[in-house]
Amino acid sequence: MTTTPAVPRGLAGVVVTDTALGDVRGREGFYHYRQYSAIELAQTRGFEDVWYLMVHGELPDRAAAADFAARTAALRTLPAEVREALPAIARAGAGAVSGPLAGLRTALSLLGASAGFRPVYDIGAEQRREDALAACAAVPTILTALHRLGRGLSPVEPREDLPHAANYLYMLTGSEPEPAHARAVEQYLISTVDHGFNASTFTARVVASTGADLAACLVAAVGALSGPLHGGAPSRALDTLDAIGTPDRIDGWIREQVLSGHRIMGFGHPVYRTEDPRSRMLKSLAQGFGGPLVDFAVEVERQVEAILAELKPGRELHTNVEFYAGVVMELCGLPRAMFTPTFSAARVVGWSANILEQAEDSKIIRPAARYVGAPPPQPVPAP
Amino acid sequence: MTTTPAVPRGLAGVVVTDTALGDVRGREGFYHYRQYSAIELAQTRGFEDVWYLMVHGELPDRAAAADFAARTAALRTLPAEVREALPAIARAGAGAVSGPLAGLRTALSLLGASAGFRPVYDIGAEQRREDALAACAAVPTILTALHRLGRGLSPVEPREDLPHAANYLYMLTGSEPEPAHARAVEQYLISTVDHGFNASTFTARVVASTGADLAACLVAAVGALSGPLHGGAPSRALDTLDAIGTPDRIDGWIREQVLSGHRIMGFGHPVYRTEDPRSRMLKSLAQGFGGPLVDFAVEVERQVEAILAELKPGRELHTNVEFYAGVVMELCGLPRAMFTPTFSAARVVGWSANILEQAEDSKIIRPAARYVGAPPPQPVPAP
Repeated sequence: MTTTPAVPRGLAGVVVTDTALGDVRGREGFYHYRQYSAIELAQTRGFEDVWYLMVHGELPDRAAAADFAARTAALRTLPAEVREALPAIARAGAGAVSGPLAGLRTALSLLGASAGFRPVYDIGAEQRREDALAACAAVPTILTALHRLGRGLSPVEPREDLPHAANYLYMLTGSEPEPAHARAVEQYLISTVDHGFNASTFTARVVASTGADLAACLVAAVGALSGPLHGGAPSRALDTLDAIGTPDRIDGWIREQVLSGHRIMGFGHPVYRTEDPRSRMLKSLAQGFGGPLVDFAVEVERQVEAILAELKPGRELHTNVEFYAGVVMELCGLPRAMFTPTFSAARVVGWSANILEQAEDSKIIRPAARYVGAPPPQPVPAP
Repeated sequence: MTTTPAVPRGLAGVVVTDTALGDVRGREGFYHYRQYSAIELAQTRGFEDVWYLMVHGELPDRAAAADFAARTAALRTLPAEVREALPAIARAGAGAVSGPLAGLRTALSLLGASAGFRPVYDIGAEQRREDALAACAAVPTILTALHRLGRGLSPVEPREDLPHAANYLYMLTGSEPEPAHARAVEQYLISTVDHGFNASTFTARVVASTGADLAACLVAAVGALSGPLHGGAPSRALDTLDAIGTPDRIDGWIREQVLSGHRIMGFGHPVYRTEDPRSRMLKSLAQGFGGPLVDFAVEVERQVEAILAELKPGRELHTNVEFYAGVVMELCGLPRAMFTPTFSAARVVGWSANILEQAEDSKIIRPAARYVGAPPPQPVPAP
């Protein structure tokens, strides 16, 4: 019924929108937020500055940074209705396969209702930004509370005097983190705020294009992120290290995986043809901490690359963000069940920036399907 | 960075997927589920039969129909964790702009966690269908419970001996509905199970393409449906009738709206160039009930068409599904706040069928964006 531009399956490479938020240059091993290298931002700035950059389009000056940090810190405390519902959400989600992301999905949905977020087209850019800040500021509080409740512990109230990343670790453990741990996690969070037009980011923009409220968009994105094909589960790379066990077993384990055609978790990326720039930064962070886990991971990386060069010559396969992200988070004391949730605590800022950008475009994203079933109409048989 | 097929804004008309679920033929004023006219199904079958058709691909024989009805009826009762959380969800959502859909979003998310729905790619078609039946069967129970709780009333437990539509009305009011009301609502529900590749259906399929669990897909679709640009708010058409007030005011009111360039709610559809086939069926249902509201609605329709023919000659503008859907639901005793939720109780079956179909395709839906911001990399200024 419709004229149909021929497009690749899954819309691969089809440009749905323009964006000023950033891009990934797979061949160059480079990605950026706005006009800045994401890795350089992670190395030189705090999380709140990058959050501000994504939302406002420029880095804050000193006064704006202080104001933004204070405003977002004040938004960390959850509304009473949400806080009171968290024990039930943690209980219900105890058996959820999608794990803590299922609880985040529910709690964000509830937050959206209780905070009265308005449909994004009904409000001005200013109010949309406020809703987005409230949602992003609440995510670490939600995640850490659900994690603790799931283990029979009381949630730890947020502290406004700590930066975003340090407060996240504080709420998780109840004690102030080592500065080096807080900074390493902060750099990880900054480096995963955004990364091109991945499936959850696209999902957030599709829902935003209907004009729905911010929570509707974010909840949809959390759902997409929980899908195994979306990729991104830093705990899997650590599970690989555990499965190998000891340095003497690396060679045999890897060869068996490769020869039996299995993917090696933590290696390979659909976009990067070079080293993943996030992996390079995280490896350097891990090496700064040092220790047997880091030595083991570096040795696994070296041997995987050597074995692949031997068995699959010409195929460039490097560590992706998962590999050293898992190592860094483990070194910083994050439990594995919190690796993907921690990723979501960063990515929610990227989703929000995408939603805010999409809200400036009044065109709904609504493609078509082609009917390929039996020809209608067949008369309906009597029951 | 990517080769880019040129596509229309919002992917309008771009075929993302093949489907055997149905299609809308806008020029012919016709739409179908599988190989059957949707309207003919609504006129001759029960809701459960059409639900079975969408999920299984064929109409059930007598034994299969009885079995399916019994299985889905047994799934109407919510898990204890969800039931216990409903008062808090109703309280939090009391001020939600997206109204009862925000509560449905939260409760479905919680249901998905508590029922332990597995990611759709991890399980076989059989188990996916079970998860889908559980979610669809629960929606009327969730919606009616939230509605009653919001008004200080206790939820009414589902009855397994009533058909889907009758049980929905029963849970809403606490008393068994008039058979004519139950049947009219059932016909409305059947006629809105699916309708081409709308934005919420597309959203459900995008999330399904990541392999996420069924609740993640449905929650995203509910979010998209809550967007004002998705369209579909049958209460708006009734609000229009209220705003006009009396038959003598129709002419002046309509002329003023048209001349000041306002849309008249309940009229016009982006796809149908003819009468909306759902509108025709619902008008006939309304006229079967008769009464002053129906006479008034018919008179408004007549005058709107006449005035538009005079002021905007050549523009075909007819009532859409909202107009008489609102009238029929009002006549059947549904409160206006429940009009869009009632729509969602039908559409969840269409979303589910789309999710089940998408799960057969292992390709993630992941388009691209074009970076149009300031050229990177700019050196990051010191904080």
